Amino acid sequence: MRSDKPIIRSALENDFYKFTMGQLVFNKYKDVPVEFELKNRTKEVKLADVIDEGELRENLDEVGKLKFNKTDIHYLRGTNEYGDRMFSEEYLQFLENFCFPEYELGKVDGEYSLKFIGKWSEITYWEIPALAIINELYYRSLIKSKNFTKLNNDLIYATGKSRLAKKIQILKLNSDITFCDFGLRRRFSSEWQDYIDEVLAEELPEQFLGTSNTYIAMKHGLLPMGTSAHELFMAMSGIVHSNYFTIGKSHNKVLQNWWELYGYGLSVALADTYGTDFFFKDMTAKQARLWKGLRHDSGDPIVFGEKAIKFYESLGINPKEKLLVFSDGLDINAIVRIHNYFKDRIKVTFGWGTNLTNDMGLKALSLVIKLTKSNGYGTVKLSDNLAKAIGKTEDIELFKKIFNYSGNNYEECKY
Amino acid sequence: MRSDKPIIRSALENDFYKFTMGQLVFNKYKDVPVEFELKNRTKEVKLADVIDEGELRENLDEVGKLKFNKTDIHYLRGTNEYGDRMFSEEYLQFLENFCFPEYELGKVDGEYSLKFIGKWSEITYWEIPALAIINELYYRSLIKSKNFTKLNNDLIYATGKSRLAKKIQILKLNSDITFCDFGLRRRFSSEWQDYIDEVLAEELPEQFLGTSNTYIAMKHGLLPMGTSAHELFMAMSGIVHSNYFTIGKSHNKVLQNWWELYGYGLSVALADTYGTDFFFKDMTAKQARLWKGLRHDSGDPIVFGEKAIKFYESLGINPKEKLLVFSDGLDINAIVRIHNYFKDRIKVTFGWGTNLTNDMGLKALSLVIKLTKSNGYGTVKLSDNLAKAIGKTEDIELFKKIFNYSGNNYEECKY
Repeated sequence: MRSDKPIIRSALENDFYKFTMGQLVFNKYKDVPVEFELKNRTKEVKLADVIDEGELRENLDEVGKLKFNKTDIHYLRGTNEYGDRMFSEEYLQFLENFCFPEYELGKVDGEYSLKFIGKWSEITYWEIPALAIINELYYRSLIKSKNFTKLNNDLIYATGKSRLAKKIQILKLNSDITFCDFGLRRRFSSEWQDYIDEVLAEELPEQFLGTSNTYIAMKHGLLPMGTSAHELFMAMSGIVHSNYFTIGKSHNKVLQNWWELYGYGLSVALADTYGTDFFFKDMTAKQARLWKGLRHDSGDPIVFGEKAIKFYESLGINPKEKLLVFSDGLDINAIVRIHNYFKDRIKVTFGWGTNLTNDMGLKALSLVIKLTKSNGYGTVKLSDNLAKAIGKTEDIELFKKIFNYSGNNYEECKY
Repeated sequence: MRSDKPIIRSALENDFYKFTMGQLVFNKYKDVPVEFELKNRTKEVKLADVIDEGELRENLDEVGKLKFNKTDIHYLRGTNEYGDRMFSEEYLQFLENFCFPEYELGKVDGEYSLKFIGKWSEITYWEIPALAIINELYYRSLIKSKNFTKLNNDLIYATGKSRLAKKIQILKLNSDITFCDFGLRRRFSSEWQDYIDEVLAEELPEQFLGTSNTYIAMKHGLLPMGTSAHELFMAMSGIVHSNYFTIGKSHNKVLQNWWELYGYGLSVALADTYGTDFFFKDMTAKQARLWKGLRHDSGDPIVFGEKAIKFYESLGINPKEKLLVFSDGLDINAIVRIHNYFKDRIKVTFGWGTNLTNDMGLKALSLVIKLTKSNGYGTVKLSDNLAKAIGKTEDIELFKKIFNYSGNNYEECKY
């Protein structure tokens, strides 16, 4: 059955933030039981009808065999761009002995049910490789299917390359825009992401800052990049789930943990887990002063940026010294628009995902693998767009109350 | 003219000891002017008659363009097998900015004259890549020449593989033998060394300890390995060249410098620069106790080992706690013989060069690029085999007196 190379090529082929978050989890919450689950937000595609189960298992099993070798460990140990010795020897030792835990794969109504259940410190590494596998297998299957004509086929890379060229052309005209590649999980293929990152490094050496794909960063001498994910906040709510008060405090507890471990180097806070209105009440004046900046991942980016500026100004902080990282459904037009809008008011950069690594003229899927349970409790993400909300209805309602959530924005996810 | 890939593929494609020595040089002797020069000890081959000058220049120029990228630096920073943070940030910064200096290439009587003149801290990185280039180009030329029949051609890899298999078979039968690959400089080709090291890692995971080729170590997750070279001692004689006394002291000065920088982790002393008789008088009892062991690089290995055992015993040191690294013209028979001879008397391992990476049924060249001048003075290596001696006749005579050299062993170098 094996006809193609394994999609995930190295234990390092994961988002860099999985290692920075992974270290925090390893240090403090190693044995917390968690569950991650696949969710296909693209209603019109039934994954199990398109992707062969054998191929899917084969690729997941290949990940299961991956180990961190000496070079991977040297590379992480030598990563100091965000702080000296950011990875402890204890954590590196843990990675050296690490094996991917089991996965649970089944089929329900033409959809795959894919779950990862186990210790948080081990399970967390599955999310990104599994997403990249499903995504790439989807396109491989599409291309192999009879519905694809010779022209369809030929057009894929032609389209991808001409669109990439167009993006680069616009970015060259806007030479103060910087960005990085956050598109591992939804890339068209591993080879295509390699190609994209090599081309960007050559064409835009000052503007293309790096990639979240740690393996590609290592392979091409780029900077591995990332902030942190909703996962941290969501899991924490389960860990301190004794009452409304402790849940309410759990968000800031994550910020405190993160700062304690990484300090300024990685201090970009993800702002939307329970809605940004809550976030701007929860982040203390001291944190606002210390932290480098914020990441936007849902809702209107302009509205968010304005809120952030107002937030900093209300605390007597000069917004020009702060950084906003935009990462929600970006395309080149949004990037230029956001960049120009905030020019000279606050620093801005971009974590560009799906539309960077999967813009070949084929519809991108909106797949996520999300933390659904932590420490036995259902987890919740609200965000500034209820289409991105995660959690059981009763849990969502509970968390809306706890975090004083009043938003009602609902916008279909582009990716 | 370019028909093949560049021979040297990365700035890290150098012997690991060039970086450990390079750091010492960078710390203490950065600006010392030195000269390195090519010497072809294989009389019957005139290199300039075989190797095309254009191809040679092209490959040297490719090295000239190499830079250490982020990953190379991460990798070195993360190398801690010989001591925590063995490479300082200052040195890594130096490598980040490093450019290979110019080379001087000419032709004299059918031979290439190839010189590297400049600051020691920069020039030192040329030796190994230049040797590997000349070596590989020699075989490429040989194979392309009309004297090579179809059968000759077909036999090369078949011979290389069957000989490798034979070596592995014998090593499996002698499962307490350990060794590493020191054969970058004389390898048949870059691809062949890659192949060898991958195969050895798979077939002999417990016996094959690593490789001196830092790039291949990184590429395949192996341990980068090495001790130190005659270069350190030879250059030091020029640095302290004021009188016979200071020259006489220069050898131990190198041992002191090395220990001060790396301590136990890299404490294997090369024993033959001015003959081992001198070495065993020069190494102090304290050094003998502290240092991990010695490297043998000329003269009879059994005689050397017996001397070393006697040396340790005379100081009340248990030889079983010390290590001898043999690296002189090894083949599988010599390895097994030396290993068995010293079994249970002193620890033994092997740095296997030419005969490991260039055993294809074609005669191996005996090429060296040696330090000929340091700080304006001619340098000298005596060793335990005068066929390996380096230096102008008058300098050799001078150094024989200074170091009380009484040896008269002369044996054509196998490689």
